[in-house]
Formats: sequence, C-alpha cells, structure tokens
Amino acid sequence: MSTTNQSEWKPTRFAIALFPGFQALDAFGSLDILNILSKRTPLSLYVLSATLDPVSTKTSTSGHRIGQTVVPTHTFADAPDDIEVLLVPGGGGTRDPENVREVVEFVRRVYPRLNYLLTVCTGSALVARSGVLDGKRATTNKIAWDWATSQGPKVNWVRKARWVTDGNVWTSSGISAGIDMTYAFIADRFGEETARSLAYASEYVRNTDPNEDPFAGEERNGVAK
Amino acid sequence: MSTTNQSEWKPTRFAIALFPGFQALDAFGSLDILNILSKRTPLSLYVLSATLDPVSTKTSTSGHRIGQTVVPTHTFADAPDDIEVLLVPGGGGTRDPENVREVVEFVRRVYPRLNYLLTVCTGSALVARSGVLDGKRATTNKIAWDWATSQGPKVNWVRKARWVTDGNVWTSSGISAGIDMTYAFIADRFGEETARSLAYASEYVRNTDPNEDPFAGEERNGVAK
Repeated sequence: MSTTNQSEWKPTRFAIALFPGFQALDAFGSLDILNILSKRTPLSLYVLSATLDPVSTKTSTSGHRIGQTVVPTHTFADAPDDIEVLLVPGGGGTRDPENVREVVEFVRRVYPRLNYLLTVCTGSALVARSGVLDGKRATTNKIAWDWATSQGPKVNWVRKARWVTDGNVWTSSGISAGIDMTYAFIADRFGEETARSLAYASEYVRNTDPNEDPFAGEERNGVAK
Repeated sequence: MSTTNQSEWKPTRFAIALFPGFQALDAFGSLDILNILSKRTPLSLYVLSATLDPVSTKTSTSGHRIGQTVVPTHTFADAPDDIEVLLVPGGGGTRDPENVREVVEFVRRVYPRLNYLLTVCTGSALVARSGVLDGKRATTNKIAWDWATSQGPKVNWVRKARWVTDGNVWTSSGISAGIDMTYAFIADRFGEETARSLAYASEYVRNTDPNEDPFAGEERNGVAK
C-alpha cells in the first residue's frame, strides 16, 4: 500500500487477469474507461494470462458460441511486481476450476501487495476461491448467484448491490455492472469530476448508487423477464 | 438482401471491421451482446482487419495511452462473402484517412450485398467517407460532432439521437450508445423478448428510446459537464 495520503493517492499501474472463457464486457467495460482516462493521465496496463498465447472469450467447451481473442502482455509467472490495481473479470470460464487455477493462485499470491482488487460478475467467485474475500462483503452475478456464492462460503455475500466495497476490494454484479463500479472507483480515486467527464466522453449514463440494483429480485422479478 | 419475409428474417453471420485505434467499447459493447446471443442460437462472427496481425486499440501516435490488442480472423481481402451484418466501430484511429483506407474501401465494396450495416460512434464518420450514407439519416459521437459530420457532407446528420435507423443502416451516438443500439437491433430482428432477456443476463439497464439522448446538448450542457 502507498504510504502517501490515501485520500489523494491515484493509482497508475493496472493489470487485468484473463483466462479462456472470460466475459468480453466484464473486461472491456472497465478497460475502456481506463483507455479514455489514459488520454489525460499516464497509466500502465498489463494484460495477464497463464501463457502469452492469445486468450479467447470462449473455452474449449463453448461449442458453437462466437468469441473474440485478446493478446496478453505478460504471463502470471512474469507479471511485473508493481501492480497497484488488479481487475478480474468473470465469465463461463470461471466454472472449470482447472481453467482458472493459475488465476486463483496468482490472486492469492499478489493480493497482499495490491492497493486495490476489482472484480466484475463471477470474477468474485473466482477470487473467492483464493480465500482473499473471506470475511469480506462482496457481490456477484445474479443469475449465477447460487453457484457463485458457493465458491466462497466464508464471504459475506450481498445480493442487492450494483457493486460492493470492503476495504480495498471492489466487487460488482453481473457483466454491465462492472462499468458502473469502475466509474465509481475512478470517482473515488481520481475525483467525481473526472468520473463524470469520462462518462460524458463515453456517452454513458451512470448508475452512481451502489444500492440501486434492479436485478437482485428473486426468480427474475426485476426490471425484466 | 434476403428474399424471405424480412419481418421474420434473423441474421446469423456477423462481421466486425477493426483498425488500429478502434475504441474498445465501440466493438465489445455490441460484440458481447452477440456473444451471449450465440449461447442460444448459432451465429458466426468474422473479425476483419487489413492484415491478420493483432489489432490494437492504440495507433502509432497514441503515445502513453494504454490499449488492448485483438486477433482478427480474416483480412478484408479474404473476408467471406456471406456477411449479413457488418459492424463498424469508431475511435481515434478514424481520424487518419490512411489508417482506415482499407476499411472505407471494404465498406464501399460490400455494402450492396449486406443485409445490415451498423456503426458505433465515429464509425459513422468512417463509413460516411465510403459514400454509403449519402442521402441517409445518421448520427455519431457528440464530442466529435463537427469533425465527424464533416466526413459526410451529403449525410442527413441527426444530432439528438441515441441511435438512428434509415433503411438497413443503423448508426449510434458515442461509444456506450452502441450498446443500446445493438439491443434495439436484436429486438428488431430477434424480438423484444430476446433483447430483454439478453440485457437481463448482462444486468444492463437499456435505453429503449432512440430519441432519448442526454448528450446532444450544445456546448456540453447535457447530463454532465
């Protein structure tokens, strides 16, 4: 953790942990906010994966699904040791423990020296397996709720939340919720005016209330379906 | 165009045209909706670029900006000729005519046999250069409005619009607006219930009104800044 005044400290070194079957918008909803921020303030981003091979949003069992493939910059083994903020997306690939084993181990290993850990969707289920969420409040995807929360029986799961913060851990609800969480994180670290300006540039209408969650109803009785 | 009943015809073969300096969320906001749709109905997606080299969201002049890199599946020259829906994102890379020359030529060449052309953000400025928007209604990014509209002097640009449809061309406003447009496109082709269900799965609160545009105000007097 930085020893400077935490209320004014701004992270500049970000990383994202990818694995086969990550959800595209879990990753790019957050990353594109950082992309735009980096036009204004220098940032670093490490795109991490188990190997340097391109990583698909599909897994080998995704069948006829379509997907996209992203190129990592570093492996987990060779990740720079100066990461300040680690982003962990979710996605179908989190379901197979072997598929994400190296992500779980990486999170367990680096969490003590991170300034912030941010997860989107079932990224919190993956991270929960590492134990770093034990005793903490967190949220996750609502459709995958039962499975996701079973991955961290010692986590204080919060169902009705667009996102949850507990100490230096930020966890969001499903997929698109990661966008609102990331703007809130930017507001927390870089100021509300910066977050508002970035959202304006992206023509994004933010949900700024972490407790406003239209998808938390039981049995899909939220805003839709 | 398909010769079957247009009101019931559902596209299955999509392509996206990438170039250095494309905006990540322009692409992945739309693509991730298709990713989720493909769990339910078989789709094809071709990721096109000038070469098969990975394509960065940065350009050579992006300086200290961060970015991500995506792997194409086909070149424009070798693109399958059965594309039904072509997506064209925007981004800083659209500003340099040479950087997107092959995209403009590709759009001009394939538009006559597409069923639908969808653009996000300054993707419409890029496409306007090909001439296919001449005489059509279209919209684009609001901050880049003056530059973007200058790329298509014969286009009927609509400032206040989350997205615009004219015949088989759908154009959205900046970055995040592409998400609302793509859900509307899915509703149009696959039915409102499908669009609603996909948005629910993504925990996304849609703007379903193409005329509701909080970013259209002059001089940034919209919802923010």
